[in-house]
Amino acid sequence: MKKYTNINDIKNVSKIIQEAIQLKETPFLFENLGKHKTLVMLFFNSSLRTRLSTEKAAKNLGMQVMILNVNDTWNLEFEDGTVMNLNLSEHVKEAAQVISQYGDVIAIRAFSSLENKEKDESEFILNSFIKYATVPVVNMESSTAHPLQALTDAITIEELKTKPKPKVVLSWAPHPKALPHAVANSFVKMMQETAVDFSITHPKGYELNPEITKNTPINHNQEEALRNADFVYVKNWSNYTDYGKITSQDPNWMLTKEKLGTAKFMHCLPVRRNVVVEDSVLDSNNSVVIHEANNRTYAAQVVLKKIIENI
Amino acid sequence: MKKYTNINDIKNVSKIIQEAIQLKETPFLFENLGKHKTLVMLFFNSSLRTRLSTEKAAKNLGMQVMILNVNDTWNLEFEDGTVMNLNLSEHVKEAAQVISQYGDVIAIRAFSSLENKEKDESEFILNSFIKYATVPVVNMESSTAHPLQALTDAITIEELKTKPKPKVVLSWAPHPKALPHAVANSFVKMMQETAVDFSITHPKGYELNPEITKNTPINHNQEEALRNADFVYVKNWSNYTDYGKITSQDPNWMLTKEKLGTAKFMHCLPVRRNVVVEDSVLDSNNSVVIHEANNRTYAAQVVLKKIIENI
Amino acid sequence: MKKYTNINDIKNVSKIIQEAIQLKETPFLFENLGKHKTLVMLFFNSSLRTRLSTEKAAKNLGMQVMILNVNDTWNLEFEDGTVMNLNLSEHVKEAAQVISQYGDVIAIRAFSSLENKEKDESEFILNSFIKYATVPVVNMESSTAHPLQALTDAITIEELKTKPKPKVVLSWAPHPKALPHAVANSFVKMMQETAVDFSITHPKGYELNPEITKNTPINHNQEEALRNADFVYVKNWSNYTDYGKITSQDPNWMLTKEKLGTAKFMHCLPVRRNVVVEDSVLDSNNSVVIHEANNRTYAAQVVLKKIIENI
Repeated sequence: MKKYTNINDIKNVSKIIQEAIQLKETPFLFENLGKHKTLVMLFFNSSLRTRLSTEKAAKNLGMQVMILNVNDTWNLEFEDGTVMNLNLSEHVKEAAQVISQYGDVIAIRAFSSLENKEKDESEFILNSFIKYATVPVVNMESSTAHPLQALTDAITIEELKTKPKPKVVLSWAPHPKALPHAVANSFVKMMQETAVDFSITHPKGYELNPEITKNTPINHNQEEALRNADFVYVKNWSNYTDYGKITSQDPNWMLTKEKLGTAKFMHCLPVRRNVVVEDSVLDSNNSVVIHEANNRTYAAQVVLKKIIENI
Repeated sequence: MKKYTNINDIKNVSKIIQEAIQLKETPFLFENLGKHKTLVMLFFNSSLRTRLSTEKAAKNLGMQVMILNVNDTWNLEFEDGTVMNLNLSEHVKEAAQVISQYGDVIAIRAFSSLENKEKDESEFILNSFIKYATVPVVNMESSTAHPLQALTDAITIEELKTKPKPKVVLSWAPHPKALPHAVANSFVKMMQETAVDFSITHPKGYELNPEITKNTPINHNQEEALRNADFVYVKNWSNYTDYGKITSQDPNWMLTKEKLGTAKFMHCLPVRRNVVVEDSVLDSNNSVVIHEANNRTYAAQVVLKKIIENI
Repeated sequence: MKKYTNINDIKNVSKIIQEAIQLKETPFLFENLGKHKTLVMLFFNSSLRTRLSTEKAAKNLGMQVMILNVNDTWNLEFEDGTVMNLNLSEHVKEAAQVISQYGDVIAIRAFSSLENKEKDESEFILNSFIKYATVPVVNMESSTAHPLQALTDAITIEELKTKPKPKVVLSWAPHPKALPHAVANSFVKMMQETAVDFSITHPKGYELNPEITKNTPINHNQEEALRNADFVYVKNWSNYTDYGKITSQDPNWMLTKEKLGTAKFMHCLPVRRNVVVEDSVLDSNNSVVIHEANNRTYAAQVVLKKIIENI
């Protein structure tokens, strides 16, 4: 693997899932593989799970880890040809090349600001690092994709499924803040690549990017969509058409125990209790969110393993 | 040891003190004990000594360390059953369970805000982590206790005492800011458990929690209280009855060389010079504060050792 | 080496440069030298290159690294004899002594504020740590010196020079913010110690400290000064006489491809594109800034090696 910035970077999804499950059994088996190799983690946004699980994954492989909270440090210029006489002190051209000399792999978290669709979709931060870095780049959530989360989710479904082709439904849920589309996008793409019966449910007008959803079935009737589901993945996202806006906070879309039925409940966390999903779901055995969060480590570990094997 | 959140978690105080003193002699003797074990340090408040000494202690044992400044990262909900539609993005139920999967031990620093006595005494942050975490928890100073400091202090007295039962006095001192009771509380509890002649001196009205001081002698005449002391532990705390208020800044309570006499001066640091204690004390050979701060490492190390031996 | 706070701490410049170049070839050759040794890095100011390269250098030597952003943590008092009843919570006397017990080497970054020349030149932060710390101190850029950068620059010139005594010119350049003199000062001192034909060019009135520049030739005509140069080191600094002021932003002093000619372009980074230097220089093969930034690791590594060999 030469980078992991989008799930398209995975050649064989089912094989990498199996390898991740094996790493979970023997997390320290490859602890010499990363010797003398350094992961630099750059955070343009804060992080709990991604930070800890990716750091742990790298250390499980014997890598050194250096962590930089970018916004505490410096303001980067991403545009070409500008006269840098305002508040931006370094161009990403230099930053990416320089950091490539201190790290063997660079992992980057840079959220969407939800202010400019075109700019977000250009993935200017992530793509600038891909362009100028001379080492492999790992996406720890960008404007439009969260491929480590999606790989985590696929691993979780593979581990917990009780039939060859489970029914998986991605359901929108209300949220008080405008949230990016990254998690939903990558989950959709991942499900399209795996052997599941996949569909999406959301209120009318909350369509995700059609270039991503493609011909995945979309149902605007949540109850109907969730019927006989094996896995319900709940996630809020802000409006994609009316970009970044909250056009519904309809509490009827909150996931309840009744709607969930016997399905497994999935969520990337953090989750707003009694807004996105009710307590009785999260506190039941049907919730697999803690199990899922644990798999973040092994998703990151298999990706880092594939990358450093290839350096 | 299954956790270390209060000095009550120590079964045999004198034995753990001896073991800490041995670790100080041979800090790397158990450097394989922590192999493949991770300490996650969560800071709700900033830290110098606790941060560096605990990190060092874990690394001396061969543990991996991951550090998270919580307030930079996310706002936790601690109440049950709330509708999380305001600014709190994650419930401690999920956070504690998730972090338990990335770390083998979780260490937490979460000060009192001194705004609500009942809330502070409920230790809602620390106790929520104890409740929901599935791994051992270490207290790096909570609302009402600082047991790593108290263990440090007991080690220091054991090392430096010149008689079997030294006279130890805890003396209140003035301070420009309202400070929590955590250090004083844990020191009082620790002294009650060790072979010392222990008493407290403070201005009238500055009584600590009587459930902690119990029948420890209290003298409101500082000069009298300090007479013939072997160790004088100086510490400010805000009013406990008129909770969190500063009702005295009387400079006569500052510790002077004259009042100290031949006793050893102890303080947890940081210390305000010429407010809490005069320069001539800190700069004299009677001050053992630097020696004491060094023992923070071995207090943390013996605690982590006992915990990981028990995992 | 007992400390590295100024380039005067280097006994034999050309020998240390050769040793750094050898470390670059075999960075892990001494990975057992730093075993059981800890570097504490204290940042009073933010950092990208210095942070990552110094951390990496220490880890290449097998050291443990603990990093503290001081301003997030505590406010230090540096004056003697003050009554600390305001906002400063700890005196550097205690801080430096305490940290010396957690780290075997202390590295410090503390910039000039450019507000008080005398205070800056007293190097009160760095010198307080040198005075009170009981372990070696490394300067990661202080008010008046950046000796790790200067060593980096000397290594770079040594590697890339094509004649025994290359012509090296330090050229001032415009910048929208008032910048300290540290980089320029240390570069000047280092060039005075190495076998180069060295001169400085800057607008009239932009003289650096004459105690540093001594009899180094200064030319106020940039074009003339740069003629036949082998290395052009570009750097802005604020006015030294009219201390900390910006008295020129003359764009004619920006380095252009034309002025550079066939010389190598050097800069410590970060650099403002099209203000300090035009794109066509940075994007050409004559720019060695990325190569130079990589040498930061080996400058730090040779310094740390020399220091821990001497502990």
